[in-house]
Amino acid sequence: MPILPIDSGRYGTKEMKTIFEEETKLRYELTFEAEVADAQAKLNMIPTAAADDIKNVVLSNRITVQRVKELESVSDHDIAAIVEAISEQCLESSKPWIHYGLTSNDVVDSSTSMQMRDVFRIIETKLQQLIKDLLKKAREYQDLPSVGRTHGQHASITAFGLRFAIWANELLDHLTRISEGKKRFLLCKTLGVVGTGSLMREKALEVQEIVARKLDLFPTEAATQVIPRERYAEMMFIITLIASTLDKISIEIRNLQRTEIDEVQESFRKGQMGSSAVPVKRNPIKSERISSLARIIRSNLNVSLENIALWHERDLSNSANERFIIPMASILIDDMISTMIKIISGLRIHTDKIVKNIELTKGQIFAEFVLQGLILKGLPRFKAYRSIQSIAFKAAENQMHFYDALTSENEIIENISKEELKVIFNPQTQLSASKNIINNIEDKARKMSVY
Amino acid sequence: MPILPIDSGRYGTKEMKTIFEEETKLRYELTFEAEVADAQAKLNMIPTAAADDIKNVVLSNRITVQRVKELESVSDHDIAAIVEAISEQCLESSKPWIHYGLTSNDVVDSSTSMQMRDVFRIIETKLQQLIKDLLKKAREYQDLPSVGRTHGQHASITAFGLRFAIWANELLDHLTRISEGKKRFLLCKTLGVVGTGSLMREKALEVQEIVARKLDLFPTEAATQVIPRERYAEMMFIITLIASTLDKISIEIRNLQRTEIDEVQESFRKGQMGSSAVPVKRNPIKSERISSLARIIRSNLNVSLENIALWHERDLSNSANERFIIPMASILIDDMISTMIKIISGLRIHTDKIVKNIELTKGQIFAEFVLQGLILKGLPRFKAYRSIQSIAFKAAENQMHFYDALTSENEIIENISKEELKVIFNPQTQLSASKNIINNIEDKARKMSVY
Amino acid sequence: MPILPIDSGRYGTKEMKTIFEEETKLRYELTFEAEVADAQAKLNMIPTAAADDIKNVVLSNRITVQRVKELESVSDHDIAAIVEAISEQCLESSKPWIHYGLTSNDVVDSSTSMQMRDVFRIIETKLQQLIKDLLKKAREYQDLPSVGRTHGQHASITAFGLRFAIWANELLDHLTRISEGKKRFLLCKTLGVVGTGSLMREKALEVQEIVARKLDLFPTEAATQVIPRERYAEMMFIITLIASTLDKISIEIRNLQRTEIDEVQESFRKGQMGSSAVPVKRNPIKSERISSLARIIRSNLNVSLENIALWHERDLSNSANERFIIPMASILIDDMISTMIKIISGLRIHTDKIVKNIELTKGQIFAEFVLQGLILKGLPRFKAYRSIQSIAFKAAENQMHFYDALTSENEIIENISKEELKVIFNPQTQLSASKNIINNIEDKARKMSVY
Amino acid sequence: MPILPIDSGRYGTKEMKTIFEEETKLRYELTFEAEVADAQAKLNMIPTAAADDIKNVVLSNRITVQRVKELESVSDHDIAAIVEAISEQCLESSKPWIHYGLTSNDVVDSSTSMQMRDVFRIIETKLQQLIKDLLKKAREYQDLPSVGRTHGQHASITAFGLRFAIWANELLDHLTRISEGKKRFLLCKTLGVVGTGSLMREKALEVQEIVARKLDLFPTEAATQVIPRERYAEMMFIITLIASTLDKISIEIRNLQRTEIDEVQESFRKGQMGSSAVPVKRNPIKSERISSLARIIRSNLNVSLENIALWHERDLSNSANERFIIPMASILIDDMISTMIKIISGLRIHTDKIVKNIELTKGQIFAEFVLQGLILKGLPRFKAYRSIQSIAFKAAENQMHFYDALTSENEIIENISKEELKVIFNPQTQLSASKNIINNIEDKARKMSVY
Repeated sequence: MPILPIDSGRYGTKEMKTIFEEETKLRYELTFEAEVADAQAKLNMIPTAAADDIKNVVLSNRITVQRVKELESVSDHDIAAIVEAISEQCLESSKPWIHYGLTSNDVVDSSTSMQMRDVFRIIETKLQQLIKDLLKKAREYQDLPSVGRTHGQHASITAFGLRFAIWANELLDHLTRISEGKKRFLLCKTLGVVGTGSLMREKALEVQEIVARKLDLFPTEAATQVIPRERYAEMMFIITLIASTLDKISIEIRNLQRTEIDEVQESFRKGQMGSSAVPVKRNPIKSERISSLARIIRSNLNVSLENIALWHERDLSNSANERFIIPMASILIDDMISTMIKIISGLRIHTDKIVKNIELTKGQIFAEFVLQGLILKGLPRFKAYRSIQSIAFKAAENQMHFYDALTSENEIIENISKEELKVIFNPQTQLSASKNIINNIEDKARKMSVY
Repeated sequence: MPILPIDSGRYGTKEMKTIFEEETKLRYELTFEAEVADAQAKLNMIPTAAADDIKNVVLSNRITVQRVKELESVSDHDIAAIVEAISEQCLESSKPWIHYGLTSNDVVDSSTSMQMRDVFRIIETKLQQLIKDLLKKAREYQDLPSVGRTHGQHASITAFGLRFAIWANELLDHLTRISEGKKRFLLCKTLGVVGTGSLMREKALEVQEIVARKLDLFPTEAATQVIPRERYAEMMFIITLIASTLDKISIEIRNLQRTEIDEVQESFRKGQMGSSAVPVKRNPIKSERISSLARIIRSNLNVSLENIALWHERDLSNSANERFIIPMASILIDDMISTMIKIISGLRIHTDKIVKNIELTKGQIFAEFVLQGLILKGLPRFKAYRSIQSIAFKAAENQMHFYDALTSENEIIENISKEELKVIFNPQTQLSASKNIINNIEDKARKMSVY
Repeated sequence: MPILPIDSGRYGTKEMKTIFEEETKLRYELTFEAEVADAQAKLNMIPTAAADDIKNVVLSNRITVQRVKELESVSDHDIAAIVEAISEQCLESSKPWIHYGLTSNDVVDSSTSMQMRDVFRIIETKLQQLIKDLLKKAREYQDLPSVGRTHGQHASITAFGLRFAIWANELLDHLTRISEGKKRFLLCKTLGVVGTGSLMREKALEVQEIVARKLDLFPTEAATQVIPRERYAEMMFIITLIASTLDKISIEIRNLQRTEIDEVQESFRKGQMGSSAVPVKRNPIKSERISSLARIIRSNLNVSLENIALWHERDLSNSANERFIIPMASILIDDMISTMIKIISGLRIHTDKIVKNIELTKGQIFAEFVLQGLILKGLPRFKAYRSIQSIAFKAAENQMHFYDALTSENEIIENISKEELKVIFNPQTQLSASKNIINNIEDKARKMSVY
Repeated sequence: MPILPIDSGRYGTKEMKTIFEEETKLRYELTFEAEVADAQAKLNMIPTAAADDIKNVVLSNRITVQRVKELESVSDHDIAAIVEAISEQCLESSKPWIHYGLTSNDVVDSSTSMQMRDVFRIIETKLQQLIKDLLKKAREYQDLPSVGRTHGQHASITAFGLRFAIWANELLDHLTRISEGKKRFLLCKTLGVVGTGSLMREKALEVQEIVARKLDLFPTEAATQVIPRERYAEMMFIITLIASTLDKISIEIRNLQRTEIDEVQESFRKGQMGSSAVPVKRNPIKSERISSLARIIRSNLNVSLENIALWHERDLSNSANERFIIPMASILIDDMISTMIKIISGLRIHTDKIVKNIELTKGQIFAEFVLQGLILKGLPRFKAYRSIQSIAFKAAENQMHFYDALTSENEIIENISKEELKVIFNPQTQLSASKNIINNIEDKARKMSVY
């Protein structure tokens, strides 16, 4: 019976999980063996007939997970079992050329790169979708003034749409990180036991070049037995960074959905229960789940970093844990992005409540702009600051609107007219460059062909 | 098809994995519901007939995982689905009393405690076995002098057996940590939605007391909706600490098994392959695996720590990740302890090589004792130190044995006789308190009924 | 010029920082050397006159940090420099007996234990103070109904005072963790280069016993050159756990101080500015700082865990980082507890707003209790649940009070009277066992002599 | 008295520490204020005379740390204190235009970017030096065969120089990461309180563009009050990755310096003591220190990741901890690179021991090549493998040289001649593509203008 919630079906999309199934992993490994044989034949290192036979066998479905497992149970060595399984199906004359000049880890690391190549394809596509959805929301709410909060306190006015553009911009940069990073981490390796190319000698580099090109990977420039784990850490970091941005968005939604704030609401499926005791609650459980899973991805980065300092030409201490962290990070980040797409596209935005919240402090949220107004009239900043502060505190104590408090003070009215103050207290005039920023991010998305 | 290596069968013992199977988890939850009903009947909160009916239903096998999943697919709420599944099988008159006064999370957290109660039972038993095996080795090698290494350099003489006693002592203290910690983290909770006892009012505490006693748990003294996650962090920490000690032992074995040191060797199954390219290698793969898995457990502790600061009376951000880290930590630590038991009991110890390694520095390893000898003769420490240092460096340069170098220097011979030096250079005389320490640890183990 | 904010004076109390000043550290180390000499004289290992001379010298102020640093600049070895500095001041006849039978790390680790002994004394005292302050608040607000929130949503009623008791309870358990842990981590060590007792032989254990008792430490049962770093990790963990509880409290305050919730407010010094642009803001900056520093302490735990698996009888990879993490964790946790004491004792609690917030959902917060009421009347849970849910949603849509919505539905009124509903909608009746729980925690604090 | 070892002078170079001194930090902040005023004057937002006056004041040394601290002690707000300090020195007519349209955090974040700009300049220069030193060693030892080790076991032959090229390649990629990342993290921000540009309105973006260009930074495309902390995490990650590579190199040196392996030795200063008890030891303490400090940098990355999900338009929970982690990471990585330059340039390489170690397994290290030889003769891989394995194990048992063992077996000799075997057993023939790889990395370094 399944135990972990990826295997029990609770988390993970089918397309992403398929990449990490034993069956698929075996296909990647076999494809790699085939491409190596093919490249070696091209370079006259092995007979073309042998290469053809090997390719034929490995790309058929005759090599089964089950048979490989049987062989592994004898040798305790997974790659040796694959080689033996190929060998069973090959012509006698091809046998010397199977896995020729390779070490097990050439297969392990290169096939992991093939998996990650496909993982990032999925992630990139979904990130693009999410960016589009965010920019749509940004555009839609670019003119809606809303409370900007710092320290949990009402601080100033911002366009409600701006936050979506800010998030979109982070995700665009994540796309750039992926795209810039690929040359460093999607690596093909055929450099043998200790990274010298050993049995293939100088030709190891040529074989690697050809196979990398065929598999849409990059050749390894220098390695020990394994691809340097710095590169895995970079992959894991980018995934972690995406997870952290999603966590940030989730926390914003969870906060904006608070009963007291109530500016947004995750869509709620009919029949769905909020709680077994309190029927009316509508909890932001999708966002909460993203926050929860982000912690796992974040913590797994530490594993990846600890894996870097392997001993000498390698030790095995990266192996067992990578069987967890690589699929977990990939499957969970994909689940999280998919969930976020659902959250954003289904998000209910309570325009009326957003407008209403601006008035919660009885005008005090406009203090920054009043201060600016006074400074522009020539008042020294500190004088103006202290004067506004004192009026504001008095107003708060007396439950008075800040506009009324200001206009009843001569020292204010002498410097700034009621008409000017009215303009200042109109949130619509305080969106500043919000729209320009949104435009800029849209342009950037367009240039990156996302939008 | 299984993805993560716990579900694929690569890691984890059957007995530990069973605890985390959906089926078992459901049984724990149902048992909790039954015990709550029973306690409530005892306290005249609900009719005895209802309690009996509920107990009867939940402890039968009529409530299946499959049915619960079907119901969950409608409500999106796992505990509500269980309550509904019980309801389907109960008498009409019992229905109001199912899950009476509880909130979902009372069930979730209490059943997790039941799982962890059983997890620690297994861990404790295996740790005791491992301690016994270590102490046996300590006793067996208590008189064998060996190289003690600091900074990777030969530093002094130690009894080969001492290291086993040091490890045993750490594990004994882990047992104490578990035993002292249980009252804090094996908690039963029936305090409802926000920890007030809500629907059961003052009686909530009494119910909790009774149920806790029945389930071999401890009552929750104060909580929000959830048991404070500090307590989960303590559990995870203890597991992490055990993992780190096992990692330490593994690294020692990996180091002592180095080709150049060769003092120990993991047992090697007949037919097992060391490498697909190099047939003769005997790699310490069990120890390497322990080091690898320790990193996962270590990193998961961060998740547990981030789960502590939940918002208000709780948010859900602990939920999804605990579905991973709790079973992973439990199953992997159990796997690691089991593996370590195999490693220690099967460890080949190369007595001849251990003895031979002492001589690798041509006697320089005895420098500390020579220094001491000179100090006891009244030489000022720094004078003695510098003099020995200079002789030692010269000896090293000339590939001369340190004993010979010393005895050819008048300033030494004038202070200490050749006979005395001979005694000093006999490793057997330098075991110091090794045996006493081993005795003490054995006594401690005996007092803790481990040995 | 100072760089890090502990040295620049931004964080840290004087009493705690003193413990980690070079001067104080040197005094601890010298005291240890004195006590070892004393114990050795008692056991007739060294001449009493020598011990007296050594004690005399090291406990005077003749050994200065400056002189030790000068000597260290030559030898690159801090403990050797101390020994040399003592030697310079001693009688010729005492010189052989300085640092007799010790290794440098005996001094380093034992003096760190002395520091931590004093660190924990300060922490314990302050935690007791904080617990008292929390329990005072708990008692003061034990009868004030307030909103209990889960998922950021109004969920149920709780006594406002209960949260303080919950926090106090966690802190009480931290005191227990410290108290139970001391025997494992406040260790004195005199077991020499590789933990065998080497030069003092069997007597090493006796010396250790005597010195430990004198210094209010515990003897090391088994060690390599260093005290096993599992024990440091436990210290760091307990500090991390305290930090996490404080972080949790801080986050609650930051959330309750939100403009929209406004139930509490950190005290605000006259003249203090909230923001350079917005004068009226009152930001919970003390709580935010605690949250911020908690992240450092949390992350440093990873360092401590990575330090456990030192090679063989020790390598130096723990050394440089412990110079940071031990003082940082100690000084910052002390700063955080001190700050929290200030926050709690100065906390403004807005009783009127707390009461008002209960009504924010127009009675829907009482749904749990209405559900319970219907169940007690014999309605099946699911029927009652769905019925309440539908009424609640309709009421919400129509901006109707939940009580009115309920009483206008026959299916409700037939089962439960308006009078009964009125009682249910009285928050005062829903505090359940809050007061009992607070009482229990007070009792516990009293039993632990904290209260 | 100083406490943490950066302030006590133990770690950190002068040039790097200067960047983080309060004095320097203040100069960065003042420069930013000056450039903003200048840009605003250019865009006719403020009077040129005011801008000139402000620039004049802030770029003079009239604004002192001491004065700022005095003002801060009143307002509890560091940036407000700076603005006030400027104000004190300015003409009355300039006062309104100081800090015009900015929020405190514009200054804080932009000046941090200026610090990091200079930090990375230093790091890049030193990394280039280190790469050059590594490549020199790679070239020097490109033809020296040495043992390649996997799992701590002798595995195959590699050029001793290859490891240096592998490390250089990782460092080259770190340079690329820095260079690609700068556009994302070296950001200038003038977007005000909630990222809308608030008081400067649409012109905020133009001001930002101009100031960024002047300060050699990049404009912020979208932000809340703060630059998104994803970007700080990327900086910290790159530093962590460099630290991890240095840790990897250090661990290799520590391992190769082991008494039993003895292939390299850190240079050892005359007079330096290895140990206070054992005079002859030469411990790799520089490498050990790098390993130790790497753990701090690694752990601090977690802080940076936790700082990403700030609430709404920002909360302060990043602030206190960034005062630690940013200078610590910068100063420690610089110290580590500087130390590594010293280690590599002073590294003693024991050519004779490297050669000798190859023979330690009595020829078994060549097994891979013998296997390959047999396969090339047409033997099936598995047959050849099992046959070699059995001969190898027998040889090991009988302490026989593997070459002799092979040549005494007919099944081998029939397939491969003694002459062929002799070639195989010549380590010089087994360097394979080592030299080509070194060449390639040199070419890459040249293309990146490092070499």
